[in-house]
Amino acid sequence: MVRSCARKDQTMTQPQPMTVPASQSWLETVRRAVDERLSRFFADERAAVGELAPDALLVLRGLESLTLRGGKRLRPAMLVAAQRAIEPRASLSMVLSACASLEILQSYLLIHDDWMDGDEERRGGPAVHVLIRRELGGRGVDAVGAHLADSLAILAGDLGCAYANRLFLESANACGAAGPALETYLRVQRDVVLGQTLDLLGSPDVSRMHDLKTGSYTVEGPLLLGAILAGAHHAQLDVLRRVARPLGEAFQVRDDLLGTFGDPKKTGKPVGNDLRVGKHNAIVRECELSVPAETRAPLTAILGRIGASDDDVRRAMTMLEQTGVRARVEARLAKLVDEAKAPLAGAPLSPEGVRAISELADLFGARES
Amino acid sequence: MVRSCARKDQTMTQPQPMTVPASQSWLETVRRAVDERLSRFFADERAAVGELAPDALLVLRGLESLTLRGGKRLRPAMLVAAQRAIEPRASLSMVLSACASLEILQSYLLIHDDWMDGDEERRGGPAVHVLIRRELGGRGVDAVGAHLADSLAILAGDLGCAYANRLFLESANACGAAGPALETYLRVQRDVVLGQTLDLLGSPDVSRMHDLKTGSYTVEGPLLLGAILAGAHHAQLDVLRRVARPLGEAFQVRDDLLGTFGDPKKTGKPVGNDLRVGKHNAIVRECELSVPAETRAPLTAILGRIGASDDDVRRAMTMLEQTGVRARVEARLAKLVDEAKAPLAGAPLSPEGVRAISELADLFGARES
Repeated sequence: MVRSCARKDQTMTQPQPMTVPASQSWLETVRRAVDERLSRFFADERAAVGELAPDALLVLRGLESLTLRGGKRLRPAMLVAAQRAIEPRASLSMVLSACASLEILQSYLLIHDDWMDGDEERRGGPAVHVLIRRELGGRGVDAVGAHLADSLAILAGDLGCAYANRLFLESANACGAAGPALETYLRVQRDVVLGQTLDLLGSPDVSRMHDLKTGSYTVEGPLLLGAILAGAHHAQLDVLRRVARPLGEAFQVRDDLLGTFGDPKKTGKPVGNDLRVGKHNAIVRECELSVPAETRAPLTAILGRIGASDDDVRRAMTMLEQTGVRARVEARLAKLVDEAKAPLAGAPLSPEGVRAISELADLFGARES
Repeated sequence: MVRSCARKDQTMTQPQPMTVPASQSWLETVRRAVDERLSRFFADERAAVGELAPDALLVLRGLESLTLRGGKRLRPAMLVAAQRAIEPRASLSMVLSACASLEILQSYLLIHDDWMDGDEERRGGPAVHVLIRRELGGRGVDAVGAHLADSLAILAGDLGCAYANRLFLESANACGAAGPALETYLRVQRDVVLGQTLDLLGSPDVSRMHDLKTGSYTVEGPLLLGAILAGAHHAQLDVLRRVARPLGEAFQVRDDLLGTFGDPKKTGKPVGNDLRVGKHNAIVRECELSVPAETRAPLTAILGRIGASDDDVRRAMTMLEQTGVRARVEARLAKLVDEAKAPLAGAPLSPEGVRAISELADLFGARES
């Protein structure tokens, strides 16, 4: 059904009807299947917690709300693409719980990060600590109430961690790959935590920090996990690692472009958000390297000033465009995407899988939210 | 060596030299082996993190410091006792990583709990969020610095969670029981988080809260996990569940007695700590049920008053003794320990294992810290 709808849309807009619609359709199929698995998981778990500890449903609701609000399911798509690259006939159902696990793992990490970073919005809604503060609102949120809400949000994350692990285990068992898959999965968890630590401490090794914090569970983790679950051998994993390195960086550079030039309606964040919060992202770094101090004054004037006016922020953005900073960062992004796709040529992977990974690489370079 | 030392001590103080010294020796053997496994794990991980993200060593040190400060290793002992009850010839080395995992799991939970509860001391040293605040002290701890330290402590807990899972996986793989053992292990994680949620929310169902928060990972979890890792069948697990229920409650009642009447030198907490912080523990509940309001006035006067004088606190303690409240709670504790040991008689478990579990039950009822 999904497949045929996508094909219909396709014939009207695209010159290569056999490739792209099939792709659109697999992404949509994964997205819907993951959403359904997540809904089923949360329904089961609401029943279990309602029985076991009804007062704790508040915390489960926070986790569920954030998880179901996420839409793109890019990490599951990455995992499924890698599964297909190794074993094109393997069924989605074998790895569906692992896909759901990646989404709940992300919720866990986002819940803790948002509280740490003081971010109040996420995915077009309140961050979980804000959501819980509001739910506790009846009691009046004073300092103690806020600490209670923050504590419950940390627990919502902790609960998510236990759930993500359990869901991943389900797929690992189904695929008969519990040992190696879980080892990689837990290494990813460690790496993300280390990456967030470097981020909080303002570590100067920004690329290391991004590798650990974002790359590990956004690109490399899902690729390796999908492949391991499908029974990949070493040479195949090596190719995927070589894809993952530039692609993880591409994801981050795209994130930085969106954080600076993104459409607030699509990103859900104010104009030039990264600049206002003073994030030393790839655009700011490129500007500092290539633009003389007097020319970059409009940026210096607003960097890290949350209260900067939209006009002042737009002035900095115009400078970044006129000095070619934006174009240079975009060129670097395109180069990273090409680098990521290069090892796929002639690799010991299935053609379907190579197409799917390639398509995701393009999407990572072009996404708008 | 350990075994013979324990025997030597024994001959001077105990009438049954053949039973107790052997027991002392297995507990001591487990404790030392777990301590060694933990030291080795942290040494390896310090090297790995030092390579990968040296700035993050701060967080690893916090986790390590708290974990190595813990002394009794009762949960590992419980796990080993259950392993022996199922398979007395199985080697300790098969489950040693699972034992270390339980200790790091506890560190994770304690780090998060201490921050939530505002507890500044733990195991005779600073809580991890306090430790990290001090380490960051050079920067001067203002409100932002304190939030940074708290955030890093949450990450120390998160890191511990990933490590605990990885260590548990190691034993689960070694025992060829990855699926069922990990499922139980992750259910325990969920239950503890739900229990802590009920605790924070002041849920009126105190016994449910304790079952989830303490019982699950202190008694039932270790017993079931040790048994599953040793290949237990259903009937054996059922017996252990029947042991676990009263024993988990006994552990909590003993905790409440220590929190009220414990020796500050041994517990590391001020005289009558639970009363000062206003904990509605088993002693307070028994007093409210059985002592008229005017007689219990000395307790009412200090309950929840952190600044109460030692003399006032001692007056409340004297009242609790004179009205027989303490004796009644102690009698209940003894009854719970007996109830826990009852299902062991004639159970399909090895005699060595039954002795070990029985001994731990006595220890849980009598521990002084």
